[in-house]
Amino acid sequence: MKKIYAKKDYPLDQIRRHLEPGPIVLVTSHWQGRDNIMTMGWHMMMEFTPALFGCLISTIDHSFEMIRKSKECVINVPTVDLADEVVGIGNSHGTRLDKFRKFGLTRVAAEEVGAPLIGECYASFECRLHDGSLIPKYNFFIWEVVKAHVAASPKYPKTLHYRGAGEFMVAGRAIDLREKFKKQNL
Amino acid sequence: MKKIYAKKDYPLDQIRRHLEPGPIVLVTSHWQGRDNIMTMGWHMMMEFTPALFGCLISTIDHSFEMIRKSKECVINVPTVDLADEVVGIGNSHGTRLDKFRKFGLTRVAAEEVGAPLIGECYASFECRLHDGSLIPKYNFFIWEVVKAHVAASPKYPKTLHYRGAGEFMVAGRAIDLREKFKKQNL
Repeated sequence: MKKIYAKKDYPLDQIRRHLEPGPIVLVTSHWQGRDNIMTMGWHMMMEFTPALFGCLISTIDHSFEMIRKSKECVINVPTVDLADEVVGIGNSHGTRLDKFRKFGLTRVAAEEVGAPLIGECYASFECRLHDGSLIPKYNFFIWEVVKAHVAASPKYPKTLHYRGAGEFMVAGRAIDLREKFKKQNL
Repeated sequence: MKKIYAKKDYPLDQIRRHLEPGPIVLVTSHWQGRDNIMTMGWHMMMEFTPALFGCLISTIDHSFEMIRKSKECVINVPTVDLADEVVGIGNSHGTRLDKFRKFGLTRVAAEEVGAPLIGECYASFECRLHDGSLIPKYNFFIWEVVKAHVAASPKYPKTLHYRGAGEFMVAGRAIDLREKFKKQNL
């Protein structure tokens, strides 16, 4: 059994601290009584307030239609202890598969959306569709994060960053360069 | 003096290997005889072929108008030895400043665009504007990478990943999970 994190409410205008470093994320969805999970690496922050987040979801993914129709999802950030689950989920298809069960992950009810949080991820961000205008052309979704849950520890999570070809980079040491910043840029 | 990398042509459909991990990048631009550099963290891969890359550039940045008007830029990926330059560039304004000179960086001529590559960055991607339809609403630029230059070494570059509040994560160890992937997903 993997650790289940006790997550706390987290300020929406600070979520860049967990998403801007570029981790692989697990996206949960819910549609017509079923849940799904997909692995995703193509995403970015787009605005502080409202807290906007853009991502690309392939039409090949079973999650695509569930997410497009429900207009909701949860972005969950895993750490290196979930590396096997991240790869397993990315390499399996959800049509008939219960990925929570298969990968031993824990559903935790969200507050604002139908999709569940993943208990074993240290951070989860509940999202509602903000702008779907680029879905037809690029499969590009712009989300508003409406509720953020982050565990107080680890302070410097060992997130996974995908390099392609089956290789990942694991988040390394932290450096603090605050003193070199202008105050208004912090 | 920092090291200047001898970069080689790199396949466009493989650039995700350097951009998907989510590094802080240095964006160079050229307009009306002047160059500029900005630090950027909000970006993502959008397509393999053509090689599409999305990013957000604030209207506060001097580079915004230069890039919007020239419809070109170069995305350069720095490593941790350039941390002071990354922060210094992010905290200075380019109207009258020659950032190459101030930060001791080397202009290298691009092949396809007017903006220069940064010699001290191990990877540089020449970009032409592919779709500017979301610039007015989100300052969101969709680029086609038309030429890629990457140094053969380091194989696992110590890239910088911004956590906000003046803190960075430095790229850590590499893990290879290729054997857990389905072949068609590699």
